[in-house]
Amino acid sequence: MPAYKAPVEDALFLLNDVFHIERYANLVGFSEATPDVVAAVLGTAARFCEEVLAPLNQVGDEEGCRRSDDGGVVTPTGFKEAYRRYVEGGWIGLAVPPDHGGLGLPDTISQLVTEFMVSANLAFAIYPTLTQGAIAALLLHGAAEQKALYVPKLASGEWTGTMNLTEAHCGTDLGLVRTKAARQGDGSYRITGTKVFISAGEHDLAANIIHLVLARIEGAPPGTHGLSLFVVPKIIPQADGTLGAPNAVSCGALEDKMGIHASPTCVMNYDGATGWLVGEENRGLNAMFVMMNEARLGVGLEGLALSEVAYQNAAQYAKDRLQGRALTGAKFKDLPADPIIVHPDVRRMLLTIRAFNEAARALIVWTSLQSDVARRSDDAKARQAADDHMGLLTPVIKGVLTDTGFANTVTAQQVFGGHGYIREWGMEQFVRDARIPMIYEGSNGIQALDLVGRKLGKDGGRAIMAFFAEVQGYVRENAADAVLKPLVEPLGKALGHLQQATVWFMQNAIGKPDNAGAGATDYMHLMGLVVLGYMWCRIAAAAQAKLSPDPGGRMAGKLVTARFFMERMLPETATRLARIEAGAGAVMELPVEAF
Amino acid sequence: MPAYKAPVEDALFLLNDVFHIERYANLVGFSEATPDVVAAVLGTAARFCEEVLAPLNQVGDEEGCRRSDDGGVVTPTGFKEAYRRYVEGGWIGLAVPPDHGGLGLPDTISQLVTEFMVSANLAFAIYPTLTQGAIAALLLHGAAEQKALYVPKLASGEWTGTMNLTEAHCGTDLGLVRTKAARQGDGSYRITGTKVFISAGEHDLAANIIHLVLARIEGAPPGTHGLSLFVVPKIIPQADGTLGAPNAVSCGALEDKMGIHASPTCVMNYDGATGWLVGEENRGLNAMFVMMNEARLGVGLEGLALSEVAYQNAAQYAKDRLQGRALTGAKFKDLPADPIIVHPDVRRMLLTIRAFNEAARALIVWTSLQSDVARRSDDAKARQAADDHMGLLTPVIKGVLTDTGFANTVTAQQVFGGHGYIREWGMEQFVRDARIPMIYEGSNGIQALDLVGRKLGKDGGRAIMAFFAEVQGYVRENAADAVLKPLVEPLGKALGHLQQATVWFMQNAIGKPDNAGAGATDYMHLMGLVVLGYMWCRIAAAAQAKLSPDPGGRMAGKLVTARFFMERMLPETATRLARIEAGAGAVMELPVEAF
Repeated sequence: MPAYKAPVEDALFLLNDVFHIERYANLVGFSEATPDVVAAVLGTAARFCEEVLAPLNQVGDEEGCRRSDDGGVVTPTGFKEAYRRYVEGGWIGLAVPPDHGGLGLPDTISQLVTEFMVSANLAFAIYPTLTQGAIAALLLHGAAEQKALYVPKLASGEWTGTMNLTEAHCGTDLGLVRTKAARQGDGSYRITGTKVFISAGEHDLAANIIHLVLARIEGAPPGTHGLSLFVVPKIIPQADGTLGAPNAVSCGALEDKMGIHASPTCVMNYDGATGWLVGEENRGLNAMFVMMNEARLGVGLEGLALSEVAYQNAAQYAKDRLQGRALTGAKFKDLPADPIIVHPDVRRMLLTIRAFNEAARALIVWTSLQSDVARRSDDAKARQAADDHMGLLTPVIKGVLTDTGFANTVTAQQVFGGHGYIREWGMEQFVRDARIPMIYEGSNGIQALDLVGRKLGKDGGRAIMAFFAEVQGYVRENAADAVLKPLVEPLGKALGHLQQATVWFMQNAIGKPDNAGAGATDYMHLMGLVVLGYMWCRIAAAAQAKLSPDPGGRMAGKLVTARFFMERMLPETATRLARIEAGAGAVMELPVEAF
Repeated sequence: MPAYKAPVEDALFLLNDVFHIERYANLVGFSEATPDVVAAVLGTAARFCEEVLAPLNQVGDEEGCRRSDDGGVVTPTGFKEAYRRYVEGGWIGLAVPPDHGGLGLPDTISQLVTEFMVSANLAFAIYPTLTQGAIAALLLHGAAEQKALYVPKLASGEWTGTMNLTEAHCGTDLGLVRTKAARQGDGSYRITGTKVFISAGEHDLAANIIHLVLARIEGAPPGTHGLSLFVVPKIIPQADGTLGAPNAVSCGALEDKMGIHASPTCVMNYDGATGWLVGEENRGLNAMFVMMNEARLGVGLEGLALSEVAYQNAAQYAKDRLQGRALTGAKFKDLPADPIIVHPDVRRMLLTIRAFNEAARALIVWTSLQSDVARRSDDAKARQAADDHMGLLTPVIKGVLTDTGFANTVTAQQVFGGHGYIREWGMEQFVRDARIPMIYEGSNGIQALDLVGRKLGKDGGRAIMAFFAEVQGYVRENAADAVLKPLVEPLGKALGHLQQATVWFMQNAIGKPDNAGAGATDYMHLMGLVVLGYMWCRIAAAAQAKLSPDPGGRMAGKLVTARFFMERMLPETATRLARIEAGAGAVMELPVEAF
């Protein structure tokens, strides 16, 4: 069975040494997040994830969720008890404001806890992360009585939440949504329609399930401008929160999937169910976008989390498995063979994963801090800059971290040779589970289009210009630093490629949008490489300041891994640029029937 | 359920128009392979694979193989009947010499048939391809009476074959093999030991199973130089081929795997089983290498075959699925949305797969023809050149075609969005099945080391020099050709990168083998890109000669796809070169405990 150890030390290094969380003490909730509190919270979360959630990961995969005779959904052995303990720990409401039943800690801390939880057990983690998305939407768009009724129960975990967007004929294109909402006179609506791919739509972990549902009010215009958001509880609560009558909503079927077997993916039937409008009429997509941006950051995090647990197990296997001898002669002469970690190609695989993981975690922390600023700062200018950062980097985090995270689970599986293909070793589950984050919450092609088609040009390019200025400034300031020079030089070159690609779009894609579409995925990955390279510079600077004389020490390891990233991963920017500059010609030339 | 249509037209185009199979008429068996015969054989194979094997692919995945109470293995519903019909068709012995019970057709034709079979049903295809490997080893190394006893029954499919190399503690490092062989005085040996990961080690498709087993004769030296090859039948045949007594060999367990569920992966116990030496004592690994090279070419082919069937289904889905509108405005105004194939990013995905598939198929045909020359020519110089080609390109074909083939199944799955993750659509099975070719028959890291550590320097670099000369000559000869100039120019640049990398190894890896090890995988992929680029030039030249005025025609499509490859895939050579030239520094610097 795979093992997992939460990277608490690395998380604390990022918070304290790289991003100096103490500088954010002016934000609501941050003054409570003293170094001691944060270390205690992460330590407790780590133990829970390592000892309770990780051991259930394979069981969950093997058993999966199943339907009961009464139409309910039964979760795998151990999930109910684990969820009960998770709720007791108060983890779901970690970052929810105290007046809504949460602990009010920084969202950044909650994200790090979520990383641990996903590494330990992605299928389990989906239940509470969807709940957190529902809380975010209700807090931002719900009426006061909706917040009061639902949020505390969601934040405690007594109830869970869902997002209902997709229908069989529309995933990306929500303008085609057919689910209907009819006014009932008492302020409520009758919701009728069928939603598909609804994670945690039905299960036995919590007493109630609060569905947020996109539907079209009778007479509303077609397309996305006619969609409204509704809250549709599985069991209709009374005003005091006690459970009332069951609603006309049911799970029609469970999907049989490649992975995340312990997370039920439901067909949800709304047969004249009672729902209440959240926010304004016909502004449902806007309200949903809040949940989606939250969710996209969280899905990007899933890519990192699976890459992390896959790395840990591959590294251990490489140290344990004896096979062959080092190319430079036997290194462990008293053993029948050397452990395979002596081989450069095995180390290349491990370092490729690790050089991604540590920088991706930095990117998550950096961006989560911006998310906290955007929500909690009372400085409008700071909020705007943080919003710009979030808007620009969310699609990059979602797309790049899940594409690369998946590729890394495949690489980690490869380290195991034949054992990687055998289920009991657990590596192939990481691959199957890591495949879904590339698809859900907007497939990665959609993220790339969002980045290139919307985010680049938004507000006259303000966000991308700020990003360029920050990275360029960092490169310039550290160009003469003995430790950083070998890192910022390649970063500067990579940034140049990104800027060149941006200019190419400005010159070639305005009026010819196919030139943007054909280069969007490569642009997203090019930007991902630049931002991860920037994170490595920031990490290396902090590591250098804490360096011990031990060449096997954590900080020394970070400096070597930073060099590995610059030498072996960042050079890909040249290829990405070449593809972008090739334009849409050959891509669009063939008629449809030639495919 | 996924569909499959065998690419017969493309295969015939490669044989007739690109590689001019008629020029090989001097080889044994080729004069019989007239265009009509080849077209008929491929057409018949296509129908069988499309109509019989493909419909069993999902059933096989869902049911898998299971153990029966008597220790046997039961194949999924329909497999016995399909195998019976496969045997009736004479497909296994297609390229086996007629005096050993086969049809004696070119191996190249047999490889194309295998591609169709793997696309339709990889798990099924594993049974006969292992049999073909056993036939090859027996024909080359077996005694006359062994050939007479075993080969006709294997070639007909009445019996099947296996390869038994791996033990629990040794996969790559066969020097650690512990299975023992004791002389019995009557010329036979008692074989004792346990082998793992034995494909088709036990099943119910055939009357007998002929195991080829690596074992160490008592008193033989340790390491690989003490290994001998034995033939160990499940049921000991009498001299006339009728079945006699059961042998002391049994299946101890079936592995539960990520994919290829319909192919049983067995733990095989040899409890003093009777075996007979094949070839010379202590030369077992040499005899096995014949099977391994055959098998590696075949495994590379699997990467292509799965990529092909995944492409076909993704292209169809992209034409069927209505979602959103083209970036340049609605293309199908009478539909509620455009099919997603109007989107550049979807086309990018499809063309990335297709630009690989068509060139990879050309590479298989080109190399299979060399395999035929190596076995069938009576010109020693031609045989040597063909052997050089095979030795050099086998690891590239195995490593690059399976890495890329797998990546392509993932990309094809991505085209399906959420449906790609659902089992009933079948795309996720292609991903799970395509994962194993990267591992078995020597994991891809081993292929890269074989290429860089053995094949490059062999015979003073004769093979790589011949390859450089051929591609360089082609580039030079066609530099002024109006159609080929835009293709051979980037090919020449990519070849330059490959040559530069080769020189870098000569200057930096002799005496510092870690510099070769750290760059081996990138070198393998760099060479793969160059050879696929060369294939595209050859394809484009032939397509240009057959061009019709129809812009949607097959030949026009090839010219566009060739350009796509040059513009978007070949530029990766620069990144591969940069990684190689980074050397082993950062890769080897960290102490083992830092991982």
